Amino acid sequence: MNYFSSQFKLGILGGGQLGKMLLSETRKFDIYTCVLDPSDEAPSKIACNEFTKGDLMDYDTVFNFGKNVDVLTIEIENVNVNALEALEKLGTKVFPSSQTLRIIQNKATQKLFYVDHKIPTADFVRFAYVSEIEDAIDNGGLQLPFVWKAAQFGYDGNGVKVVRSKADLKELQDGECIAETMIPFKNELAVIVSRNSNGEVKTYPVVEMEFHPEANQVEYVICPARISFKVAKKAQETALKVSEAFNHIGLLAVEMFQTENDDILVNEVAPRPHNSGHHTIESGYTSQFEQHLRAILNLPLGKTDHKVAGVMVNLVGAEGYSGDVHYEHIDKIMAMEGVTPHIYGKKQTRPFRKMGHVTIVNEDLNTARKIAEDVKNLIRVISL
Amino acid sequence: MNYFSSQFKLGILGGGQLGKMLLSETRKFDIYTCVLDPSDEAPSKIACNEFTKGDLMDYDTVFNFGKNVDVLTIEIENVNVNALEALEKLGTKVFPSSQTLRIIQNKATQKLFYVDHKIPTADFVRFAYVSEIEDAIDNGGLQLPFVWKAAQFGYDGNGVKVVRSKADLKELQDGECIAETMIPFKNELAVIVSRNSNGEVKTYPVVEMEFHPEANQVEYVICPARISFKVAKKAQETALKVSEAFNHIGLLAVEMFQTENDDILVNEVAPRPHNSGHHTIESGYTSQFEQHLRAILNLPLGKTDHKVAGVMVNLVGAEGYSGDVHYEHIDKIMAMEGVTPHIYGKKQTRPFRKMGHVTIVNEDLNTARKIAEDVKNLIRVISL
Repeated sequence: MNYFSSQFKLGILGGGQLGKMLLSETRKFDIYTCVLDPSDEAPSKIACNEFTKGDLMDYDTVFNFGKNVDVLTIEIENVNVNALEALEKLGTKVFPSSQTLRIIQNKATQKLFYVDHKIPTADFVRFAYVSEIEDAIDNGGLQLPFVWKAAQFGYDGNGVKVVRSKADLKELQDGECIAETMIPFKNELAVIVSRNSNGEVKTYPVVEMEFHPEANQVEYVICPARISFKVAKKAQETALKVSEAFNHIGLLAVEMFQTENDDILVNEVAPRPHNSGHHTIESGYTSQFEQHLRAILNLPLGKTDHKVAGVMVNLVGAEGYSGDVHYEHIDKIMAMEGVTPHIYGKKQTRPFRKMGHVTIVNEDLNTARKIAEDVKNLIRVISL
Repeated sequence: MNYFSSQFKLGILGGGQLGKMLLSETRKFDIYTCVLDPSDEAPSKIACNEFTKGDLMDYDTVFNFGKNVDVLTIEIENVNVNALEALEKLGTKVFPSSQTLRIIQNKATQKLFYVDHKIPTADFVRFAYVSEIEDAIDNGGLQLPFVWKAAQFGYDGNGVKVVRSKADLKELQDGECIAETMIPFKNELAVIVSRNSNGEVKTYPVVEMEFHPEANQVEYVICPARISFKVAKKAQETALKVSEAFNHIGLLAVEMFQTENDDILVNEVAPRPHNSGHHTIESGYTSQFEQHLRAILNLPLGKTDHKVAGVMVNLVGAEGYSGDVHYEHIDKIMAMEGVTPHIYGKKQTRPFRKMGHVTIVNEDLNTARKIAEDVKNLIRVISL
């Protein structure tokens, strides 16, 4: 098939910020794109060839949209998987596959998948209802503290909570969930694996993630991670093992813990371009968005090395501000060396809302990290 | 003014490939964009917020379009300059200015500007009609061979011809023109200068251009140029002098000859993102498109250094092929290290038509140059 002609159509489920950055790469290859998103204000709307407004969880909507394209991908996991399965039967190429998405959509199923495939992950117990948790604690089947995770629809730190006492249980939303052993870890790491249908595989360098202590959102992503070669190798091998287990095509971002004993435990995965790979736009030979396209179109994969060191800072709404967004001191950070802001274009800010990110690149990682801290201290996402 | 809100509107005259690449950067900063172009199939149409179909040379069309925006820029020089001048009087910020464009649009005026500002350039004679050239040759006022250039509307090698005999005169289009002394040169060089309203100036590294011997189109752009530090310094100083003479805001690409005596002569300029800067998307800390935005919005300029060496290959239609375009072996070049194709999306190819470009980056310039040659020998833009 000739991707470089208008005969070919690429469909993207979800028209958010990730989709917008992916579309920027499709323009480079002149790929005809169709986007489905429930919002008339989807960031991707003005960057695609055809925009369809519709519910990503509705079978008919997703099925009818997918019938019209040759290759279908996602920028968000919460889509109607039954429709994807039906489309696969009709011959539409769906990456990630319905099978992969079905496993990943549910955190309990995802954890069981790791256990089945002998992929190291933190111990956990699965519950159908939150009420069962209290019984388990009382019976000695579960020790406090632990990490509660909703099985479905959690993202950006929602649906994840550290439970230290039985009183904390009242704050949890009801429904299927897991309780995970708290892992004392040195680092949170991530590796993005790319894989095409020909079986070609390329792994991005290991990145290190620093989380905001309260919001449970990534504050800095640091590439390359400041870890030993041995640990980096183990993290990359683990990520590859996960990718092979899923027989995954496209990008797979694998988030991992480096424990105090330098063991690597898989936390969770995302089968798409991921926040931990945004820095590749500026730091890498091939941006993760271009690589995702190459992979799902079965083109040769690009070089995954980095040209220079990169640090990404998430721009989230400052506490105490809600309303029309204002990026205080954005001109000042733009005067700093190697600093590129990416503004997502959301009109309203609120505390901890993801509003954009800033990439800092430099030949020297420590310099990049220092500038990143200056950026973080200077820019504020507030309302006027 | 807050550029990072939808209150602000950026207007772009011309919706071609350069505009499309510029729009890709406006998305990063969430800038609201309006594009004017005569074609319903303009590449920028799907990447801007508001598209207006209209004639770029028509006073009312340009004036009415420009009234609606805060900052107006161009991606092509052939626009109605009187309308720009009227808009400037109303307070619209127009970059490049109507004055700069008026000088640049006419190659004879441009050459006289260099002479007036003591900027070194090849000797020339101006003619109102081609018929005057023959008289000049006969009277001894002009020596053969020389380079004929149409004063207006020449681009991509059209409107430029080497005249070796009086017989060659028959092939020239009539109208205002110049006859330029042929300069034996070692290299064609280019420097892109960026400048914002605050007067901040940053200069990109000198690049070297290799031309196709027949089509008079750039075949390779090589960054950094393989020249001595002394010659590079002279080229950058000359480019800065041109930028200052124009009091120019935005990008100014200055094309120059390095003579056999290592003198630098200015050939011509483009007051906008330019083919000689496409490699910066992959090789530079700040792509020329981002830099143009920073400059015209009076934001701090980005670092102009290169992360790695870059070579750009123009993709032009192969001789002997006209019709529906096919990019033969594009998958093979994508398997080569550090290779990124940019396909412009024109449906029809014809000999020497600009259909895209390919950037090759590598830590080592000689390796990049070698891979570029392999790319050039492998890919063919043909019709099926």
